[in-house]
Amino acid sequence: MKNIAVILSGCGVYDGSEIQEAVITLLAISQQGATYRCFAPNIAQHHVINHLTGEVSEDESRNVLVEAARIGRGDVEDLIELNEKEFDAIIFVGGFGAAKNLSSFALDNDNYSVNEQVLTAAKAFAKVEKPAGFMCIAPALLPMIYPAGVKGTIGKDNATAKLISAKGLTHIDCDVADVVVDEAHKIVTTPAYMLAESISEVAVGINKLVKYVLAFSK
Amino acid sequence: MKNIAVILSGCGVYDGSEIQEAVITLLAISQQGATYRCFAPNIAQHHVINHLTGEVSEDESRNVLVEAARIGRGDVEDLIELNEKEFDAIIFVGGFGAAKNLSSFALDNDNYSVNEQVLTAAKAFAKVEKPAGFMCIAPALLPMIYPAGVKGTIGKDNATAKLISAKGLTHIDCDVADVVVDEAHKIVTTPAYMLAESISEVAVGINKLVKYVLAFSK
Repeated sequence: MKNIAVILSGCGVYDGSEIQEAVITLLAISQQGATYRCFAPNIAQHHVINHLTGEVSEDESRNVLVEAARIGRGDVEDLIELNEKEFDAIIFVGGFGAAKNLSSFALDNDNYSVNEQVLTAAKAFAKVEKPAGFMCIAPALLPMIYPAGVKGTIGKDNATAKLISAKGLTHIDCDVADVVVDEAHKIVTTPAYMLAESISEVAVGINKLVKYVLAFSK
Repeated sequence: MKNIAVILSGCGVYDGSEIQEAVITLLAISQQGATYRCFAPNIAQHHVINHLTGEVSEDESRNVLVEAARIGRGDVEDLIELNEKEFDAIIFVGGFGAAKNLSSFALDNDNYSVNEQVLTAAKAFAKVEKPAGFMCIAPALLPMIYPAGVKGTIGKDNATAKLISAKGLTHIDCDVADVVVDEAHKIVTTPAYMLAESISEVAVGINKLVKYVLAFSK
């Protein structure tokens, strides 16, 4: 059975992993006959957002790994322990956590960087040519992992695409129900909630992403 | 388009809504051509559990409505505002939040009670004979909403079933992929993570629950 490492960045769209994308990814993997283990970095969240008001909770601090455990029903592992030999592919879920905790994209814009643990994990898969999936804003990580010219999509937001393209991404516009595939690097990307207007729309793109990622993993 | 009120109890299986059940419920509603709005009571959580260690976080407190907003991407409403006239049915998601925040079942066992706001909302649907779905441990609420003899399932856990039956539930054992239907009261129940061993198993039962709930709502 194929085994997929799923990388989370907290629990909640505005300060962590987009929960619906995360669950739909796990569901798609399971429904398509594969299995998964979840990982997240053991670091403090950039901040905590009250998801009801959209405001920063100034007096709260939360840990990315601890909060990610909510999505995995307790089953989440420290990203630093991820051994690519145990997996057939890696998938990065979206949400602002990918742009605030896994990288600084939402904070530093044209001068953003990627967390070192995230880089190490992702590059280990790239080095041995194991496939990878990135959804929503997570393709912002691509230029730091793969050579310039790597193909991917964050949907159709020109301003966002331009910032990532400046780092080396060849951005291809994409509908919510579709994926962009970089055959050479075995990378699959889909816009998910960068474009989706309903949860069932998100599921169409993510199901396709998982299908292509599994097809790449021989 | 049919409109379903989905009742959440926080965000995380051990102190709130079971996240995977919640997302799969929203996905099933959307995929089956209906729409939804999420509600949760604006009350403090019974406690906060660190989902990585399973321990109580003694120095933390969180609000049920605020945390539920993480699952709904900000779109969750105060349960006190729920008007049954705007909906065709109501569905209660599982997780310990249903047994710690919506009721005291996990705490008081044979002497448990249900939160007054929850009772008011659920009884409003029952009174006008609108259908209702309850998954996982949420059927513990049934005897306080419906007359004695109401039929439902929490799976196959005899000790748990006995406690709820003592309050008036007629418990019927049920597999994870199936539902128990109380035709007279238009109630559908499924075991979900009371029995499931994988996320795709959970989805089979919840998809069926949503299908029956929608079929009841003419």
